[in-house]
Amino acid sequence: MTMALDLAPAAPATGTFHGVGLGPGDPDLVTVRAVKIIERTPVVAFFSKKGRRGHARTIADPWIGPDKVELALPYPMTTETHFGEERYISSLGAFYEESAARIAEELDGGRDVALICEGDPMFYGSFMHLHLRLKDRYPTAVTPGVTGMAGCWAAAGLAMTWGDDVLSVLPGTLDEEALVAGLHGCQATVVMKLGTNFAKVRRAIDRAGLLARATYVERGTMAGQTVVPLADKLDDSAPYFSLILIPGEGRRP
Amino acid sequence: MTMALDLAPAAPATGTFHGVGLGPGDPDLVTVRAVKIIERTPVVAFFSKKGRRGHARTIADPWIGPDKVELALPYPMTTETHFGEERYISSLGAFYEESAARIAEELDGGRDVALICEGDPMFYGSFMHLHLRLKDRYPTAVTPGVTGMAGCWAAAGLAMTWGDDVLSVLPGTLDEEALVAGLHGCQATVVMKLGTNFAKVRRAIDRAGLLARATYVERGTMAGQTVVPLADKLDDSAPYFSLILIPGEGRRP
Ligand SMILES: C[S@@+](CC[C@H](N)C(=O)[O-])C[C@H]1O[C@@H](n2cnc3c(N)ncnc32)[C@H](O)[C@@H]1O
Ligand SMILES: C[S@@+](CC[C@H](N)C(=O)[O-])C[C@H]1O[C@@H](n2cnc3c(N)ncnc32)[C@H](O)[C@@H]1O
Repeated sequence: MTMALDLAPAAPATGTFHGVGLGPGDPDLVTVRAVKIIERTPVVAFFSKKGRRGHARTIADPWIGPDKVELALPYPMTTETHFGEERYISSLGAFYEESAARIAEELDGGRDVALICEGDPMFYGSFMHLHLRLKDRYPTAVTPGVTGMAGCWAAAGLAMTWGDDVLSVLPGTLDEEALVAGLHGCQATVVMKLGTNFAKVRRAIDRAGLLARATYVERGTMAGQTVVPLADKLDDSAPYFSLILIPGEGRRP
Repeated sequence: MTMALDLAPAAPATGTFHGVGLGPGDPDLVTVRAVKIIERTPVVAFFSKKGRRGHARTIADPWIGPDKVELALPYPMTTETHFGEERYISSLGAFYEESAARIAEELDGGRDVALICEGDPMFYGSFMHLHLRLKDRYPTAVTPGVTGMAGCWAAAGLAMTWGDDVLSVLPGTLDEEALVAGLHGCQATVVMKLGTNFAKVRRAIDRAGLLARATYVERGTMAGQTVVPLADKLDDSAPYFSLILIPGEGRRP
């Protein structure tokens, strides 16, 4: 009876923290591993905007039954605020601390938690802020996902990077001069995070002489998907889920 | 009987050409849609090196039964040749033409063909060369996949792009000066296509002052996976499936 020799009580095992990428929107673009993890993990956590369900939660719907414990993490603000703003950043910091504490509570209770994420978790994902806070305290595993941009270029039928092409991914949150500089000499390029940045981004692409090569994709792989040459998009409104693709022009034997 | 009025014979329906991304290597990182397409498509095509099975074909193994028609497309050469070389490029061109013709024959016969691809099909994928040749002649659909780099950064536990970080993806086939220039001022960076380019790429990263921030990943998510700080990798050998990750250092509230 080896157990009888071990007089100290075993430290209770903590749960594992999973970051699970769910892809660009179409539930069929979820990976086999993501499905397995969601199905076997007792607690599913997800970011959301107040009063809304959260995009990742919507994608995962087919695999979440009534017995699952759901941990909604609603962002502190619903309107878009400029990222540089100090109050926004400090309130976000507090929000991530609080979210990490709520997840840690489940992990301490020995329950695995899957934080489900739109696209890939380690690519501009909010998950990263909780990964940073929890990875050294709990067993942590990341399941990669199809990125939003890959969903969009597949939907648009655009082959992005050829031969020696360099790919640049630029956040539309950069200011106009930084965007023009970033676009200068670029080969394949993706501009993400459009929303209220759209008009500025289009001006920068036009100034860089790349308007004719650019395609605008809205809600790629989801209901209401739109794919249109950027030059043909005449209004300035762009939702959160939209980006611009400029395919490379490298070697094509 | 509306059919009786239609005297001309209907044009025989051609098959659909599918490009199907299978992710970085672990079969669990295949998407639900990729599984569905492979299972229902009568012909599965894949690139391979002569005498070898091909990496995509290995990933898809769990879903390919004995009734599947398999179309192997073996590359004309087995040794790595410098990309700029004229003979290599023209023989590749002939190879892609011939491969497109073999797939077209199946499509003309009314059979759907799934060309299975490692990673994402539109991201430095050989599929793109057949897509270019067939997309205007046949119904064509692309299923995005988890990229090799996303598999690698998940495996390494590296959160890649924060806030306003720009991501640059550089092919290791660029010459050393182009690499140093491409690395200059970069935030998050991935260098792909190492192989015989490895020593040159490490020199370029060192010259750009980024050695301490770089991680080397070999065979990410596959058997034999290796993750090591680039500074600790002392030999110069790197297989085809290897890349270097330099995570961004952007805003972390
Ligand atoms: C905070 S980033 C998160 C990216 C995500 N982790 C990924 O891997 O794609 C959000 C941005 O991704 C882009 N995006 C993600 N999915 C998209 C989709 N299905 N269609 C269009 N844009 C998308 C948009 O530019 C959006 O503003
Ligand atoms: C011709 S590119 C094809 C990329 C692929 N279509 C994708 O989406 O990742 C091949 C290069 O991708 C990188 N790569 C792809 N999968 C990888 C993996 N599992 N581990 C390490 N590197 C990988 C290597 O740098 C390799 O030389």
